[in-house]
Amino acid sequence: MNIPNILVLSGPNLNLLGTREPQIYGSATLDQIHVRLQREAELLGCTVVCFQSNHEGALIDFLQEHRGSAAGALLNPGGLTHDSVSLHDAIKAMPFPVVEVHLSNIQAREEWRRHSVTAAAALGQVTGLGWISYVTAFWGLLAYLRNEQATSL
Amino acid sequence: MNIPNILVLSGPNLNLLGTREPQIYGSATLDQIHVRLQREAELLGCTVVCFQSNHEGALIDFLQEHRGSAAGALLNPGGLTHDSVSLHDAIKAMPFPVVEVHLSNIQAREEWRRHSVTAAAALGQVTGLGWISYVTAFWGLLAYLRNEQATSL
Amino acid sequence: MNIPNILVLSGPNLNLLGTREPQIYGSATLDQIHVRLQREAELLGCTVVCFQSNHEGALIDFLQEHRGSAAGALLNPGGLTHDSVSLHDAIKAMPFPVVEVHLSNIQAREEWRRHSVTAAAALGQVTGLGWISYVTAFWGLLAYLRNEQATSL
Amino acid sequence: MNIPNILVLSGPNLNLLGTREPQIYGSATLDQIHVRLQREAELLGCTVVCFQSNHEGALIDFLQEHRGSAAGALLNPGGLTHDSVSLHDAIKAMPFPVVEVHLSNIQAREEWRRHSVTAAAALGQVTGLGWISYVTAFWGLLAYLRNEQATSL
Amino acid sequence: MNIPNILVLSGPNLNLLGTREPQIYGSATLDQIHVRLQREAELLGCTVVCFQSNHEGALIDFLQEHRGSAAGALLNPGGLTHDSVSLHDAIKAMPFPVVEVHLSNIQAREEWRRHSVTAAAALGQVTGLGWISYVTAFWGLLAYLRNEQATSL
Amino acid sequence: MNIPNILVLSGPNLNLLGTREPQIYGSATLDQIHVRLQREAELLGCTVVCFQSNHEGALIDFLQEHRGSAAGALLNPGGLTHDSVSLHDAIKAMPFPVVEVHLSNIQAREEWRRHSVTAAAALGQVTGLGWISYVTAFWGLLAYLRNEQATSL
Amino acid sequence: MNIPNILVLSGPNLNLLGTREPQIYGSATLDQIHVRLQREAELLGCTVVCFQSNHEGALIDFLQEHRGSAAGALLNPGGLTHDSVSLHDAIKAMPFPVVEVHLSNIQAREEWRRHSVTAAAALGQVTGLGWISYVTAFWGLLAYLRNEQATSL
Amino acid sequence: MNIPNILVLSGPNLNLLGTREPQIYGSATLDQIHVRLQREAELLGCTVVCFQSNHEGALIDFLQEHRGSAAGALLNPGGLTHDSVSLHDAIKAMPFPVVEVHLSNIQAREEWRRHSVTAAAALGQVTGLGWISYVTAFWGLLAYLRNEQATSL
Amino acid sequence: MNIPNILVLSGPNLNLLGTREPQIYGSATLDQIHVRLQREAELLGCTVVCFQSNHEGALIDFLQEHRGSAAGALLNPGGLTHDSVSLHDAIKAMPFPVVEVHLSNIQAREEWRRHSVTAAAALGQVTGLGWISYVTAFWGLLAYLRNEQATSL
Amino acid sequence: MNIPNILVLSGPNLNLLGTREPQIYGSATLDQIHVRLQREAELLGCTVVCFQSNHEGALIDFLQEHRGSAAGALLNPGGLTHDSVSLHDAIKAMPFPVVEVHLSNIQAREEWRRHSVTAAAALGQVTGLGWISYVTAFWGLLAYLRNEQATSL
Amino acid sequence: MNIPNILVLSGPNLNLLGTREPQIYGSATLDQIHVRLQREAELLGCTVVCFQSNHEGALIDFLQEHRGSAAGALLNPGGLTHDSVSLHDAIKAMPFPVVEVHLSNIQAREEWRRHSVTAAAALGQVTGLGWISYVTAFWGLLAYLRNEQATSL
Amino acid sequence: MNIPNILVLSGPNLNLLGTREPQIYGSATLDQIHVRLQREAELLGCTVVCFQSNHEGALIDFLQEHRGSAAGALLNPGGLTHDSVSLHDAIKAMPFPVVEVHLSNIQAREEWRRHSVTAAAALGQVTGLGWISYVTAFWGLLAYLRNEQATSL
Repeated sequence: MNIPNILVLSGPNLNLLGTREPQIYGSATLDQIHVRLQREAELLGCTVVCFQSNHEGALIDFLQEHRGSAAGALLNPGGLTHDSVSLHDAIKAMPFPVVEVHLSNIQAREEWRRHSVTAAAALGQVTGLGWISYVTAFWGLLAYLRNEQATSL
Repeated sequence: MNIPNILVLSGPNLNLLGTREPQIYGSATLDQIHVRLQREAELLGCTVVCFQSNHEGALIDFLQEHRGSAAGALLNPGGLTHDSVSLHDAIKAMPFPVVEVHLSNIQAREEWRRHSVTAAAALGQVTGLGWISYVTAFWGLLAYLRNEQATSL
Repeated sequence: MNIPNILVLSGPNLNLLGTREPQIYGSATLDQIHVRLQREAELLGCTVVCFQSNHEGALIDFLQEHRGSAAGALLNPGGLTHDSVSLHDAIKAMPFPVVEVHLSNIQAREEWRRHSVTAAAALGQVTGLGWISYVTAFWGLLAYLRNEQATSL
Repeated sequence: MNIPNILVLSGPNLNLLGTREPQIYGSATLDQIHVRLQREAELLGCTVVCFQSNHEGALIDFLQEHRGSAAGALLNPGGLTHDSVSLHDAIKAMPFPVVEVHLSNIQAREEWRRHSVTAAAALGQVTGLGWISYVTAFWGLLAYLRNEQATSL
Repeated sequence: MNIPNILVLSGPNLNLLGTREPQIYGSATLDQIHVRLQREAELLGCTVVCFQSNHEGALIDFLQEHRGSAAGALLNPGGLTHDSVSLHDAIKAMPFPVVEVHLSNIQAREEWRRHSVTAAAALGQVTGLGWISYVTAFWGLLAYLRNEQATSL
Repeated sequence: MNIPNILVLSGPNLNLLGTREPQIYGSATLDQIHVRLQREAELLGCTVVCFQSNHEGALIDFLQEHRGSAAGALLNPGGLTHDSVSLHDAIKAMPFPVVEVHLSNIQAREEWRRHSVTAAAALGQVTGLGWISYVTAFWGLLAYLRNEQATSL
Repeated sequence: MNIPNILVLSGPNLNLLGTREPQIYGSATLDQIHVRLQREAELLGCTVVCFQSNHEGALIDFLQEHRGSAAGALLNPGGLTHDSVSLHDAIKAMPFPVVEVHLSNIQAREEWRRHSVTAAAALGQVTGLGWISYVTAFWGLLAYLRNEQATSL
Repeated sequence: MNIPNILVLSGPNLNLLGTREPQIYGSATLDQIHVRLQREAELLGCTVVCFQSNHEGALIDFLQEHRGSAAGALLNPGGLTHDSVSLHDAIKAMPFPVVEVHLSNIQAREEWRRHSVTAAAALGQVTGLGWISYVTAFWGLLAYLRNEQATSL
Repeated sequence: MNIPNILVLSGPNLNLLGTREPQIYGSATLDQIHVRLQREAELLGCTVVCFQSNHEGALIDFLQEHRGSAAGALLNPGGLTHDSVSLHDAIKAMPFPVVEVHLSNIQAREEWRRHSVTAAAALGQVTGLGWISYVTAFWGLLAYLRNEQATSL
Repeated sequence: MNIPNILVLSGPNLNLLGTREPQIYGSATLDQIHVRLQREAELLGCTVVCFQSNHEGALIDFLQEHRGSAAGALLNPGGLTHDSVSLHDAIKAMPFPVVEVHLSNIQAREEWRRHSVTAAAALGQVTGLGWISYVTAFWGLLAYLRNEQATSL
Repeated sequence: MNIPNILVLSGPNLNLLGTREPQIYGSATLDQIHVRLQREAELLGCTVVCFQSNHEGALIDFLQEHRGSAAGALLNPGGLTHDSVSLHDAIKAMPFPVVEVHLSNIQAREEWRRHSVTAAAALGQVTGLGWISYVTAFWGLLAYLRNEQATSL
Repeated sequence: MNIPNILVLSGPNLNLLGTREPQIYGSATLDQIHVRLQREAELLGCTVVCFQSNHEGALIDFLQEHRGSAAGALLNPGGLTHDSVSLHDAIKAMPFPVVEVHLSNIQAREEWRRHSVTAAAALGQVTGLGWISYVTAFWGLLAYLRNEQATSL
């Protein structure tokens, strides 16, 4: 894990970022976020592989295919957050930590968006900072991975 | 807000960090985390004021007293997360953003720890990364504050 | 939008219409319904594009692909009605109105079929008239689209 | 049932249509809707009898009185939608189909407006199209009644 | 209370008895039941006053008007059983006992028919015996009233 | 079934009738009620077999043993009313009707006493008339049994 | 609105005030309260129109008829408080403020009396002071109406 | 109780009145309200002692300290309304009546603000009139206290 | 455990198998099932001890008495499935595995039959195959017991 | 159906069997289970077609494609067990019986794993025996299919 | 009641104490506890009668048989704690106080073990101290009984 | 731990013991209870430190301050029992056992008093014996502490 490889998965409808309800999700597009994460990765000495799909099954396939090669993952499950037990199980089956990311503060929205089925299988969550949630989660995940090998705070 | 001042509040029992259930909360003490945040603040050009109390009222007093001088806040409400409407209201009454922080992944613990009363009033959450949650939230909050003045991603 | 284009989407298992539980869903096949809607479209001066899939992701993909070209949509989500937040989000992300259609009266069936996750994102619902639900919803959607440009009742 | 007679019932506060919360219910008055339905009826070869009351009992009386002479009914129960078991029972006791009509999309409003007590006794629902809900339901009901005597789609 | 006067109230849709869902409610009409109760009253030395209405308010008015002259009442609230707090309050305000009557066994029907709002204000219930529920409740109410003046079993 | 045989079953703690909470259950003992029912049976031309047990299993055994010989049963399940699915199943397995009896009005007591698990399997209920509930239910059951062979009201 | 006209509506069973459960509702009659409010109105320079009905529909009719002439209303919905969506909608459709009044403290009574369906549409509530609730609400409503035209506290 | 002494308690965050969410709570400050109540007290021949704290414990201490000297109290518990059983118990332990006050109509806000834990221990509530809620409650409480010594309405 | 001894327990009302609701439970009697299991046991080299009781306590006693001699058990708890914590505890206290058996598919029946209190203490379940559930569970339990001593699949 | 063809479907993440949480799911791989079932099929004179997918839609497609050729199916829906109404509907639309299979005892795991959405549409369930669940269900399904043509037990 | 007689009842499966899940219930056997209580009784000048049964009915019978001779009782209902309304009623029917005893802290176990149906009828509870719960409850019950005859603390 | 030091904490409003609702809580004052516990401590060879506060934070502070010096604690959380997660966490963070004490039987009071948030973190509970609950819990806690060092029962 010299140069850790980080997966960045985004679920249904996140390909519409920037155009869909910008008052909630902001005007940054998913491509712009991916570019920004690539830049951060270079600075921090790691690689990222980005993936978006509207298919629950494709997200699970993608996770499984990178089971042996990834050091960690960011996952914004979109609408699957609230109902996909299968995605929950897929996260739990990975040997690496997964940080759940949300652009909006899901705790401040409709009642049924407050509960995350997937989060219980993840390492933790970063929410509510718009596209900065992705970057913050990326920083946090890397710090977490490196701390596992370090000793002092 | 040239040199932004960031509040760091920690609620009941967080003064016991490092000794209380280390398998859940880790071995870092709250003082160590405060020192680390001071160091990060120096690097990032801002100041931090840290505060811990077991009294809900003292946390609200503290927030209100810094209403005019702070640019943002990190808040780990501890057990108050799950039952303090008053703290929720205090967060809502602040003119600056508050990021909720948890050391553990509260979505993966007891059912009654999964619901956060305070989070709905906050900007967002960072959870599950141990003491790194504080640092990550700090990075994220600063990026958020600075992005508000920026234009491009 | 001179000649409005109307999408007609049908979700999982609706390809079995006519053979599956005909006492609930009637004996008309989905192909027959599509033909009928084509005929109605010709009479009313518009076009229809029909699509059926058992894949939630494919239905979302389809909606997204027609985001720029459609004037409205009929959607019978089948079993996805009751659990697909992702489909809800996709409907919400469309710039055109979507009318939810059900062959049976879902309010008169099993308790868990009475709640529609997708309906809250739609313009409205037409239910309970068998294959006539599709045709009625089609008439209603067109009347709605044309009324937006009209003034008197 | 050569010239079918269709009842059109509207419940409490619907006499205020056009003035009450027009952003939700539109600016058409109930009288205008009744006139429009009369016009549609002439075109489609049937008659309509319209009735509005703020009294649950009066609506039930009206249904019972037309039990022998009506071929079908449209019913917008207004606030009774959500709490009137008696109206539910009255619908169930009719030998003809009743289509429930709502101007707004009740599935997209307050939680307690999402549940319809009366719908389970009705044939189906048309909702969310404003005054067009009435007209659409009228078209749908007639098509349904005529289809019962037809054989091919 | 030499010749006790017993009220017999029946709520919404019970005037349709004998024609409405006879497989549940039986083929006896309400008039036949009233005649039978008159006959029983003669045998048992009391009088009955029978009343049916589809209006909650009319049932309450009727109870209030006989507040001073009645010795007891049978009440089949029909659909009001499940939602009328006002009728509950009216029963509670009467100085005489009221026995709730149901033709069907409401405990064996739809979930929402199992709960009686009115029963908590009544003396008791007789259910499930068809039209015999009325007669049985009548016998029971009279025995109850006479036992209050008696001493031995 | 020329001389119908009626079972009278009473569940746990009903042997304490007359001494246990007389303000709720009255001062009549179960033996006195049994004697009264014997007297009624003689008048009405039938026989009764009375049984009380604190054992759920014994009540079920008793019902099963009389499966071939009884024409009907009264059953006061006592505390088993609220939790015994087995007794529910036993009632359902009987070829004869069972009327559930309660001395108090269970709908007017603690929330958890309002729900009857057994009632859904019974023919109906008589409640709230004290010991008169037994007698009333007896009259009602006999009238019901005889009506099945009669035709006019 | 020189001499503001205030409506005073009271719902089902409130005509029995003074005789019905005086330990809860007090011994004042509704007529006495109306007289007292008339006296207060004279002192405060306004008029009152009082109305009581056991009919939900009549209360809605009354509100609608005074839609153009009233400056505000007091409403004690009685049992309709807890179940009348139609009354809720009628309040919401009024252009003037409505203050809900209760003689008893509904928050301290049976669980199902704690929830008010109508209160969400009202301006506020005054409860628990017996007949003084009416007078207090009257004072409060007038102060509210006059404050809208005033500026300083 | 010649010159009754009335306590006026306000809970967490109410010291921010006038600045916090003025669209909900109005622009009057708590000091202005206290001054107004002093003026009302002079007119009505009584005294008031005003107190605000963000500490649940301090509010309870204050109530207990005035247990022997106060004739009644107004209490706006702020966020403690919804979760403080301890404050409920303190109110119940007082020998004088406490009227709960809310500036906003809590029944018309978020679901979790509709339930008041404290109200069940209070005499009653005045809500929804902004700062006028305090004054109205004050008038009502005094009228209530004086009525206890009077006899006619 | 050379010749393993398997217990076969059946709870309340299962002695009526073959006669009770045969459309749900089939026409095989419990004796026939026991004979069949004896035959299977001979083929598979083990013994079975069969027991049925309507008494929860007797089933627990039976399990406890065979605690030292049995290698496993099949248990059809009948109505006790849904409410017997004591039977749950007894299963948990056994050193051998218990497989829960149901003739019908309890997941497809009344809501309250879907939850099994006892299953959480069992090894697993076999349901829905009629009398074949017993035989299938028997085959499965033996395969399970033998697999514990084997290594390859 | 001389040589019955049995489908064996496994849902999301079951391709990871043997590596994913072996303490819960065991160390057998899905391929090993398929091989074993092939061997059993040969012994029992039938054929099996095995299929695994992480896509809900693909599982439904597979079922539909074999609608005419299969005699029965085993289905382990994995995470779809708990949320897929579409799969439920697909099972219901099949003319052959489907037995639901689970490796673990879902009744003994997290609360939200105890409820099966799909089971209500299936014939029955076999759970908790690890890979032996598949084999047991296979034996049971075949016995069931053959019993339909047989007469004696 | 010179030498008070104390009953000690233990419910289903408590005869297995010492062998069943010792990590939860400890290694003391029920016989050892009974011996210890005998010793305590001698020291404290009273007698104890100990009884264990797996039969709910037998526990109720035992309580009823000692209704006239006992001064108080300790009761560990085992699994009946959570579901036996009949045992609740039996406790309530006793003229002497009953203290509920649990070895484990039921509030810290599975959700469904946290609710005690029987406790509401008891005087109080002693839980969580292992076998010492019995002894502590015994000390407490005796102190309670003796305090009733004493005056000073 | 030669002379063990036992903490005795009492929460909000318990300083009013003896005057507050004596029919529920008895007439003993908290000071009298403290004196009695001192006397018991002398007899049993240990020391007690007593503390009462209306402030949740002060109770937590007190526990934390004695973290190193106490051998165990009695805690009557008063109203905090039902809502203080922070106190729950503080108990859990202590290295010594805490026994929860209640004067009344909280299982026999209002529904919302039946659930204890703090109990799950405690060793166990003693409830319902009035002031004797404190003394009994004290005896039990000491026996528990001494048993940990002993071996035979």
